[in-house]
Amino acid sequence: MVILGIDPGIAIMGFGVIEYKGNQFRTIDYGAVVTDAKENIPMRLKKIYKGLEDIIIQYNPSVMAIEELFFNKNAKTALLVGHARGVAILAAANNDIPTFEYTPLQVKQGVVGYGRADKKQIQMMTKTLLNLKSVPKPDDVADALAVAICHAHSGVFEGLFKMK
Amino acid sequence: MVILGIDPGIAIMGFGVIEYKGNQFRTIDYGAVVTDAKENIPMRLKKIYKGLEDIIIQYNPSVMAIEELFFNKNAKTALLVGHARGVAILAAANNDIPTFEYTPLQVKQGVVGYGRADKKQIQMMTKTLLNLKSVPKPDDVADALAVAICHAHSGVFEGLFKMK
Repeated sequence: MVILGIDPGIAIMGFGVIEYKGNQFRTIDYGAVVTDAKENIPMRLKKIYKGLEDIIIQYNPSVMAIEELFFNKNAKTALLVGHARGVAILAAANNDIPTFEYTPLQVKQGVVGYGRADKKQIQMMTKTLLNLKSVPKPDDVADALAVAICHAHSGVFEGLFKMK
Repeated sequence: MVILGIDPGIAIMGFGVIEYKGNQFRTIDYGAVVTDAKENIPMRLKKIYKGLEDIIIQYNPSVMAIEELFFNKNAKTALLVGHARGVAILAAANNDIPTFEYTPLQVKQGVVGYGRADKKQIQMMTKTLLNLKSVPKPDDVADALAVAICHAHSGVFEGLFKMK
């Protein structure tokens, strides 16, 4: 199963494409669709959509896994990130790729097996599982790979996390 | 100039298509793309995108005008509305339609000429200017027409409101 993991953002949309077969991971591609704050929002959203659609067409993933976001206070940030996340979900939906979402806690449990793991532990485990030489930078890329691993590990429970 | 006005929402995406020529308005179409809360978010976003793209292709507007949203508290709502608004902006951007955004205050000033006008005054002025028999329902549709009128009236200032 090829999994596209996404860490959504308007400036940096991290992505990771991995294959999970017989309890083995294979890293296919990872990186970020980056947009310039000098560009207007419509152009940035267009670039994100096009970038993700190109990745979807190239690697034909079975599913997309994306983090569920929580904002306690900053509604303005939530609104803007919502624009980017909505466009990412649309790119999957328009290409008939089902989307699954995981909370940060579920990603920790799914990658490290421990819900109180810190960012560094998740990154080290991501690097190990995917047999990478170093932790991908920026963090958004490592986070995208982590949510993809989380989906792989969710196994028989995956139906639970299908986006509602 | 044909203007597409949008009042963004995930359940009800209000739209209004009007033409403004020689200080005269002509109402072309209005309504809403409605999505069912029983459907999942990806399917709802896909329906919104498809619905708006169909409208854009049918009426070929020169511009899209959309309300700038403010959320004081509810970041969860802001995130969800952001998904829908992002998809609406993308539908315009992917079809090379520039997007302009207006604050609620600007819409009031642009429609009624008075920033402290209430909802009812805006709706009555919208009905009058567009020569409608009644105020379109639900409010999201009337609001979409109002933001389109606001754009028409912004005239030579319109460059100021192009989305950043």
